[in-house]
Amino acid sequence: MLFHVRMDVALPHAMPADQAAELKRVEKARAAELQQAGTWRHLWRIAGQYSNFSVFDVASTDELHDLLSTLPLFPYMRIEVTPLVRHPSSIRNADF
Amino acid sequence: MLFHVRMDVALPHAMPADQAAELKRVEKARAAELQQAGTWRHLWRIAGQYSNFSVFDVASTDELHDLLSTLPLFPYMRIEVTPLVRHPSSIRNADF
Amino acid sequence: MLFHVRMDVALPHAMPADQAAELKRVEKARAAELQQAGTWRHLWRIAGQYSNFSVFDVASTDELHDLLSTLPLFPYMRIEVTPLVRHPSSIRNADF
Amino acid sequence: MLFHVRMDVALPHAMPADQAAELKRVEKARAAELQQAGTWRHLWRIAGQYSNFSVFDVASTDELHDLLSTLPLFPYMRIEVTPLVRHPSSIRNADF
Amino acid sequence: MLFHVRMDVALPHAMPADQAAELKRVEKARAAELQQAGTWRHLWRIAGQYSNFSVFDVASTDELHDLLSTLPLFPYMRIEVTPLVRHPSSIRNADF
Amino acid sequence: MLFHVRMDVALPHAMPADQAAELKRVEKARAAELQQAGTWRHLWRIAGQYSNFSVFDVASTDELHDLLSTLPLFPYMRIEVTPLVRHPSSIRNADF
Amino acid sequence: MLFHVRMDVALPHAMPADQAAELKRVEKARAAELQQAGTWRHLWRIAGQYSNFSVFDVASTDELHDLLSTLPLFPYMRIEVTPLVRHPSSIRNADF
Amino acid sequence: MLFHVRMDVALPHAMPADQAAELKRVEKARAAELQQAGTWRHLWRIAGQYSNFSVFDVASTDELHDLLSTLPLFPYMRIEVTPLVRHPSSIRNADF
Amino acid sequence: MLFHVRMDVALPHAMPADQAAELKRVEKARAAELQQAGTWRHLWRIAGQYSNFSVFDVASTDELHDLLSTLPLFPYMRIEVTPLVRHPSSIRNADF
Amino acid sequence: MLFHVRMDVALPHAMPADQAAELKRVEKARAAELQQAGTWRHLWRIAGQYSNFSVFDVASTDELHDLLSTLPLFPYMRIEVTPLVRHPSSIRNADF
Repeated sequence: MLFHVRMDVALPHAMPADQAAELKRVEKARAAELQQAGTWRHLWRIAGQYSNFSVFDVASTDELHDLLSTLPLFPYMRIEVTPLVRHPSSIRNADF
Repeated sequence: MLFHVRMDVALPHAMPADQAAELKRVEKARAAELQQAGTWRHLWRIAGQYSNFSVFDVASTDELHDLLSTLPLFPYMRIEVTPLVRHPSSIRNADF
Repeated sequence: MLFHVRMDVALPHAMPADQAAELKRVEKARAAELQQAGTWRHLWRIAGQYSNFSVFDVASTDELHDLLSTLPLFPYMRIEVTPLVRHPSSIRNADF
Repeated sequence: MLFHVRMDVALPHAMPADQAAELKRVEKARAAELQQAGTWRHLWRIAGQYSNFSVFDVASTDELHDLLSTLPLFPYMRIEVTPLVRHPSSIRNADF
Repeated sequence: MLFHVRMDVALPHAMPADQAAELKRVEKARAAELQQAGTWRHLWRIAGQYSNFSVFDVASTDELHDLLSTLPLFPYMRIEVTPLVRHPSSIRNADF
Repeated sequence: MLFHVRMDVALPHAMPADQAAELKRVEKARAAELQQAGTWRHLWRIAGQYSNFSVFDVASTDELHDLLSTLPLFPYMRIEVTPLVRHPSSIRNADF
Repeated sequence: MLFHVRMDVALPHAMPADQAAELKRVEKARAAELQQAGTWRHLWRIAGQYSNFSVFDVASTDELHDLLSTLPLFPYMRIEVTPLVRHPSSIRNADF
Repeated sequence: MLFHVRMDVALPHAMPADQAAELKRVEKARAAELQQAGTWRHLWRIAGQYSNFSVFDVASTDELHDLLSTLPLFPYMRIEVTPLVRHPSSIRNADF
Repeated sequence: MLFHVRMDVALPHAMPADQAAELKRVEKARAAELQQAGTWRHLWRIAGQYSNFSVFDVASTDELHDLLSTLPLFPYMRIEVTPLVRHPSSIRNADF
Repeated sequence: MLFHVRMDVALPHAMPADQAAELKRVEKARAAELQQAGTWRHLWRIAGQYSNFSVFDVASTDELHDLLSTLPLFPYMRIEVTPLVRHPSSIRNADF
């Protein structure tokens, strides 16, 4: 089951650089893990912004929330979740 | 080069049913064509709405505009285009 | 799996009264069916508006979209879907 | 009498972790109390956000305001209240 | 129990003048009735707009919805309902 | 002459509790004064929010601005002012 | 007493040209009258839009509403009214 | 050439009182200067807000920007600029 | 003097095709004229929308308004005008 | 390939003056570099705001994102990117 997620990241300007770097490091590691698991199916950077569009493949909304709410950057993100379904005009059988 | 596109369709209530059906038929055929060509890479229906999120793989903004503005449903759509780039945390080498 | 749905209905003023009445009749029948099936779990009218908040219990986003997009009033509704999960502070074991 | 309430929580980043934890602890205890009393009828987490949709069953707007404004997290919440009534298509006699 | 209500009226330009006049006549009569009953406690015109702020004194949200949804102009109004309570700084014992 | 005013209060989280309490004390005293004078005609709390709807009866916009801008909480408030007039359907001769 | 008013005009596309011309003619005549009376103190066209910013000098909100609501174009206008007062930094004694 | 400008001022709560007072003093002096020069033609306070509507008479957008961006309060202001022209219904030959 | 203009075009669906074609023809001719005159300096299509970003080089806001308000498509356009000035970091001496 | 970019800059009030000056210095140097390279094709200041409209000529969205996200002021900017194409009515062969 696919969910489209927009994430806008806003780290406080006052956050020490090393703390920010560490946050990004563990976020990146976690993202890699979830992508390898096939859960985080797409992760695109929105050009010109510290934001991304993602598509998650999960078995339930619980699983989705657990993943998103435990992301290291979660406290610093504005997140919008949109449930997706297969489009009647989609010819791709593996894209939903 | 990837572009994220949101399309919200609003056909006039007064449009005759057969005209609407024909529009959808040619739209679907065109979408299939573009997907087979690899241009219209992703096409997902937004659950609960006559809308979709799509990802287009094009060589230029010209190509993108030509595709979108010649879609049969174009006159009845509100379209938002967002340019994408590879996310630094994306492990997928074929997803941008 | 629960989804929160807001529906705002706007029938064209020009729609003949009997057509509107028939639409509402079949909508009401369909709603009853889905409630009896346990799918449409909550349906509340928003005071002062031709709108409702609903909660659907479905197995997938596909099922949700099929239900919503085939409602007789679907062409005349603005719909917002929000995925829900069990709240960590919820004491009710049957409410998610 | 039912009221639909959306709560978006935003704790200051600078708040010490233990203070935040204590706030959440007493909030959770209070929420349990109100749910046991049948007042806080539904409490759902919005997937991907530090937010919830709730439904309160109260005798008056005074009671509702007293409950909401004395929640430990109240100073850190954006709250939207929407009055509900029984929907003419609702088949559930205990859901309003 | 008090509810603050904003009503913005938008009659279709194409509506025949006599039909509009009749609608306004019956709306005015109904408003007078509800004011005499003490239910429609305040009714103010917003300067420069075909809109009003009102305050309703009702026993329940059901009563409020029945009143609002059966107003002759209801199909042509955008309505926002906000529940009120006595303000801790209000010195007026009859204003809530 | 009546003006409808919405006030949304947002005290900085970092404000010491006693300072906040003192601000609220003098605000409450001032509000009582203005109500006794008949200027601050209505003051209602919006359920679930640190906000109010008020109606001021003043002789001029100058008087209104002087009152609002000298409220102790003024620096911490978002204020919206809407001029009112007697509604043609209002039967109350003392409500404008 | 001064009120700042924004008017956005939107005539239906289907309105016959002569009807539109006649509306504009009587609107212009009425505007001239009010300007000669000193009531409609300023009337500026917003560059690039069928809109204006105006400043009215009236004795009461009633007078303002009567003027605005009886403008021939009133049914086709979106109007925003903002009450003004003399600015403490204004050196012009005749500009409020 | 006239430009309509809206300025919303928001001084940080943490700013020392004397610093704020000094900023306002020099802002007021500068405003007086520009008004005497005929450049800052109108300056009205918006009732109930720390905001103003102004009208500037300048020879170019450069001149306008230089004036606005060098106002002492500029760093603390949200500014909206709208170009004006003479309204075809304006009877005042000196008001554009 | 440069002005940035956004134009969103929305022709009524019911407009006969030949009428729409004629409107576009005369709009295109007018646009060419203004570009040759150097007034309409830049005209870009926004990818995926029936909209454009333009930059006009005019001597006054009057000239700008005359140009925009006499465009054949003016009645069917939503227009936003933003005054520009030379950016302090711009190295181009002919771009303002 | 052209992209229209709006940048709104908001430096924290608490940032030391010399740090802000240094940031602006390196930003200006970088902007000059990119303009000389022909990449940053247009850079206009929005009158009255610490904002600009720019047009970038880049070979890909990657290049655009790299440029924008490495601007010294990037962490303090709200950025909106809009892809452009040649307008069918544009007579300028070098403006896309």
